[in-house]
Amino acid sequence: MDIHEFVERSFGRWQSQRSAHHLAFRHFEEVTSTIDIIPLSTDDEEVLNLCKSYSIDPVLATHPFRMTWEGESDWNESESFTGTTILVPIPDQNNSNIGRLLRDLGYAETIPSIGTYKIDSDGTFILSTKYDRASAEEKIWFVTPNFRVRVSMIKTSEGNGVVTASFSSEIRSLSSNFNS
Amino acid sequence: MDIHEFVERSFGRWQSQRSAHHLAFRHFEEVTSTIDIIPLSTDDEEVLNLCKSYSIDPVLATHPFRMTWEGESDWNESESFTGTTILVPIPDQNNSNIGRLLRDLGYAETIPSIGTYKIDSDGTFILSTKYDRASAEEKIWFVTPNFRVRVSMIKTSEGNGVVTASFSSEIRSLSSNFNS
Repeated sequence: MDIHEFVERSFGRWQSQRSAHHLAFRHFEEVTSTIDIIPLSTDDEEVLNLCKSYSIDPVLATHPFRMTWEGESDWNESESFTGTTILVPIPDQNNSNIGRLLRDLGYAETIPSIGTYKIDSDGTFILSTKYDRASAEEKIWFVTPNFRVRVSMIKTSEGNGVVTASFSSEIRSLSSNFNS
Repeated sequence: MDIHEFVERSFGRWQSQRSAHHLAFRHFEEVTSTIDIIPLSTDDEEVLNLCKSYSIDPVLATHPFRMTWEGESDWNESESFTGTTILVPIPDQNNSNIGRLLRDLGYAETIPSIGTYKIDSDGTFILSTKYDRASAEEKIWFVTPNFRVRVSMIKTSEGNGVVTASFSSEIRSLSSNFNS
C-alpha cells in the first residue's frame, strides 16, 4: 500500500457512521453522513492555488482529490451540515509512503492546514496536523475494499491531553456505481 | 513495545466510553464502563486450569491478568452489566511480539476462546479470534500512558462482512492509585 493506492481505494461514495467521544464530559456524539471522494487533476486551478499558497511546486503533487460530506449530528438535529475540501498529497521525493498533505479547510479549525502523513507497513494511513490551538492525529485503514475505518484524536496544542476521540466506520455505497 | 510492556501498561482502572456501530441498521450503541485490569500469578490455579484446558504447558504463559468490567449500555438502560475474564498470553518462544492469547470467556460468544496476537512496530496490539459463527479483530494502542483506544470488528465467519465495528476510549482512573 502506498499513497497512490490508498487514495485510489478511497475514491467513491461512502456511508459514514461517526461517534465522537468528548472525553471531559464522557459525552457521546453521533453523526451519520454521506462522503464523496473524487479525483482532481493535478492541473486543476484550485490544486495549483493551494500549492502556491504553501509555496510548493505543484509538480510534486500527486492524486489530489475533493472530499464532500453531508450529514446530521445528534447534537443539532434540526439541521444537516455540508462541507467540501480539496486535499493534495505531496509525497517525499525519496519515499512516497511519507509526505505532506495540503488541505484547504482543516478538521479541527476552519482554516487551511498542512499535515504530515505516513503509511504503515500494514497499510494504515496516519495523518498528523498541527493547528494554532490544537493538534489532530488521524488513522485510516481499509478492513475490506468496501469498508474503512477512521480514528481521530484532537489534542490540545500545549500538552498531550486528548480532548476528543472519534471513530468513523465507512461503507462504500454501491449505488455510486450508477453515478460514475 | 513487547507483550510484557503492553500488559504492564494496561494494569489499573480504566474509565471506558464505547461506541458500537451496528452496521446493517446504522445503529449506534453507547456503553460506559469501568474496567479493572489486575495481574495474576503464573501459578494461579485458574491460569493453570486454562492452560491445561488447551493442553498448553503453563511454563509458556507470561503476564496473565484478570479483566473485570461494570457498566451501562443505552440499549438496556434498566440494568447495568458486569463481567470478568482471565487472559493468558502465550508468546512464541522465538518472538514475544507474536503469540496466542487464552481467554476463559470470549468477546463475541460466551465461550472460552484462543486468539492470536501480534504487536506492530508502532506498538499496536492486534488480536484475531475465530469463533464458531464469527471472528473478531481488535486493535489496542496507547495514545498516552493514561489514555488508550480499542477498535474491534466482529465479522461473520463465512465471509469478510463486518457486522459490528466498535470503538472504546479508555482513560486511566487516577483514583485507582489509592487502591493499589
